[in-house]
Amino acid sequence: MENLPQCETLLLEKQGPTLFLTINRPDARNAMSLEMVAELSAVFSQIETDTSIRAVVIRGSDGHFCAGGDIRDMAAAHSQKTAEGETDPFYRLNRAFGQMIQQVNESSKVVVAVIEGAVMGGGFGLACVSDIAIAGPTAKFGMPETTLGVIPAQIAPFVVQRIGLTQARRLALLGLRIDSREACDLGIIHQVASSDEELERMLGRILTRIRHCAPNATAETKALLLRVGNENLGELLDSAAEKFARAIRGGEGSEGTMAFMQKRPPSWAETDVEKGKKPGE
Amino acid sequence: MENLPQCETLLLEKQGPTLFLTINRPDARNAMSLEMVAELSAVFSQIETDTSIRAVVIRGSDGHFCAGGDIRDMAAAHSQKTAEGETDPFYRLNRAFGQMIQQVNESSKVVVAVIEGAVMGGGFGLACVSDIAIAGPTAKFGMPETTLGVIPAQIAPFVVQRIGLTQARRLALLGLRIDSREACDLGIIHQVASSDEELERMLGRILTRIRHCAPNATAETKALLLRVGNENLGELLDSAAEKFARAIRGGEGSEGTMAFMQKRPPSWAETDVEKGKKPGE
Amino acid sequence: MENLPQCETLLLEKQGPTLFLTINRPDARNAMSLEMVAELSAVFSQIETDTSIRAVVIRGSDGHFCAGGDIRDMAAAHSQKTAEGETDPFYRLNRAFGQMIQQVNESSKVVVAVIEGAVMGGGFGLACVSDIAIAGPTAKFGMPETTLGVIPAQIAPFVVQRIGLTQARRLALLGLRIDSREACDLGIIHQVASSDEELERMLGRILTRIRHCAPNATAETKALLLRVGNENLGELLDSAAEKFARAIRGGEGSEGTMAFMQKRPPSWAETDVEKGKKPGE
Repeated sequence: MENLPQCETLLLEKQGPTLFLTINRPDARNAMSLEMVAELSAVFSQIETDTSIRAVVIRGSDGHFCAGGDIRDMAAAHSQKTAEGETDPFYRLNRAFGQMIQQVNESSKVVVAVIEGAVMGGGFGLACVSDIAIAGPTAKFGMPETTLGVIPAQIAPFVVQRIGLTQARRLALLGLRIDSREACDLGIIHQVASSDEELERMLGRILTRIRHCAPNATAETKALLLRVGNENLGELLDSAAEKFARAIRGGEGSEGTMAFMQKRPPSWAETDVEKGKKPGE
Repeated sequence: MENLPQCETLLLEKQGPTLFLTINRPDARNAMSLEMVAELSAVFSQIETDTSIRAVVIRGSDGHFCAGGDIRDMAAAHSQKTAEGETDPFYRLNRAFGQMIQQVNESSKVVVAVIEGAVMGGGFGLACVSDIAIAGPTAKFGMPETTLGVIPAQIAPFVVQRIGLTQARRLALLGLRIDSREACDLGIIHQVASSDEELERMLGRILTRIRHCAPNATAETKALLLRVGNENLGELLDSAAEKFARAIRGGEGSEGTMAFMQKRPPSWAETDVEKGKKPGE
Repeated sequence: MENLPQCETLLLEKQGPTLFLTINRPDARNAMSLEMVAELSAVFSQIETDTSIRAVVIRGSDGHFCAGGDIRDMAAAHSQKTAEGETDPFYRLNRAFGQMIQQVNESSKVVVAVIEGAVMGGGFGLACVSDIAIAGPTAKFGMPETTLGVIPAQIAPFVVQRIGLTQARRLALLGLRIDSREACDLGIIHQVASSDEELERMLGRILTRIRHCAPNATAETKALLLRVGNENLGELLDSAAEKFARAIRGGEGSEGTMAFMQKRPPSWAETDVEKGKKPGE
């Protein structure tokens, strides 16, 4: 916990193996500022090597997930002249956001998005790179970029990966806003809660499931899923078989098989909070 | 309008920024002839550089969208001998259809399919490359090729892109016919209307949404979505950030941001019909 | 029939153009053993060139499809030392399973999975490479690998292809078990039966549809669908047009077109059982 970066725009709280990350710019409906992009990137870099953290829960403060890019940063970039040989500040702020999104997508931790209120533009992109996303009844999702004369540049690939080209075309080209039910039907999120209480219960069940899954095996599985479609199938399967052999001979594989035989929960299913020790191997 | 090609098999009508294209061979349930393929291709080539057109609405005359390839053209191709060094006329007619489908898929305009009755074979393929597809209660979708001893050669890639490999396998390998409800569940279409009136109202809402989206930003967004999965992610995001910077500094980006600040609709949300001028920049 | 390999773990029965393949290790809930992998691979190799077989129906004996990898084989691999230059026996058993799955995926026959009870791990992977999958009310699907400290190494690519990255992340990273209804919503299976009787009726209708589709055209169509996304689109469409020309000039194309004109079923719609002759051309 002491190693987590100091943040102006994020609240961080570690509970057992879970980092609760709250986007905290309620006055701007948690709009994504340059500072927030940098802080999100710093947090995900920091926790990547922290084996005490297995899951990150991302949510927004005060009833909104994230309303998109911050207008003030846009205005600031507009007023900046680009000297010869320099990159356009709009290019830099847009690309920095995309790099952060890609980093969250590829995080070795299980990323859970808990969604309420506005989930627009960049916030929509962030939701699309979570491993599990759940939303309450107030959530509104959308890509309003084209209605503002701009384009969903950095989020487009992640939206297409999330919901497929067919649905991405409609949402992006019409600048639509949709509710939780439709977002679930399209696969943007996995489950819809009908109340705040149900949303918290859903999150509780997800965190319990994460505890039952071995941390290293989970990280290896996530990395494997993200490789599919980006490389030759035969080579991917060869490499996956090597990882399988290493996993089953390793600490988690031995413990998992033994626990299964002995009909007891494996060591990683007990949190360090409960047991005062590190989970997994 | 005067620049649109003369067509035997299509009816063309421009209303404001929308081109209404009606497939018009009602005696053949709008079956796709060689002539129709050529005319569709000519129309989409022509409008590609016509900035007064933002959307194309494709529908079929007399209650059917398109019943597939035309049997008479098939018979004619059959009777043609292929001289040495010449390509098989079946190859040519099949490939010409595929080139047209690819052209419609990549059109910079927003393509809306309004679907009734038969949507078979080539007609099914055409529906699968629309940006938004809606259907009424009479629509029947199918790929009957294998029941006729042939293959859905040119549409296969677009069907897989549209609904994924899993559903494409079932539909194509069983030669199934499905209704609008199932077509919507599978993602072939986006919405189902329960009556003709509702279908027209849906179309009206879609055209209104299109008017609220900046034309160049929409075209750039569509091109971006179609690139996903076909090139390196990092390079795609770099190029997208460049396009974002250009868009926000350009006419549409300035107008869109200003209109948003001033809480008024942007210029492109007013059609040339209403205002007697060109929409957008 | 006399050419089918002798199997210890599979029951094989040919009825007309359909091979019924029953996974038969009921004491182990049909868990996938090394022997079973070898036998499945041998059967699919054998039938690949057998034109009398058009469909393979895979199901499990005694109310379960397949409960995953066999623990005894795992234990045996564990006790084996790997000599220098030798591959790890865990690598070999895992990779052999993946090769079999890939072979079933690419079989030229129509593969129908009829699913009841446990469909876990490797069994889940096998279901994911079927062309058509239907399940009864008892089916439970899951990827429990990470809860055991290992990874779904060989099935990961086929699961992502089947249901997309978004849903694969949730299922794999939480080690979830889901029922037939949810499996159908996610696209793992195509249809859910509410009773055993309905499941058999569904299978009957699927086999009837398969009989109406020309065998060679079906095999060509399946091969084409599997190529989508793995090669250049233009080249794929060129090659598909060649296959179309050959199909329509071939025996099936001639018979199919003629039968359509004469409003009679094509020859392949009559089975060899009924007519005492080979279906198709």
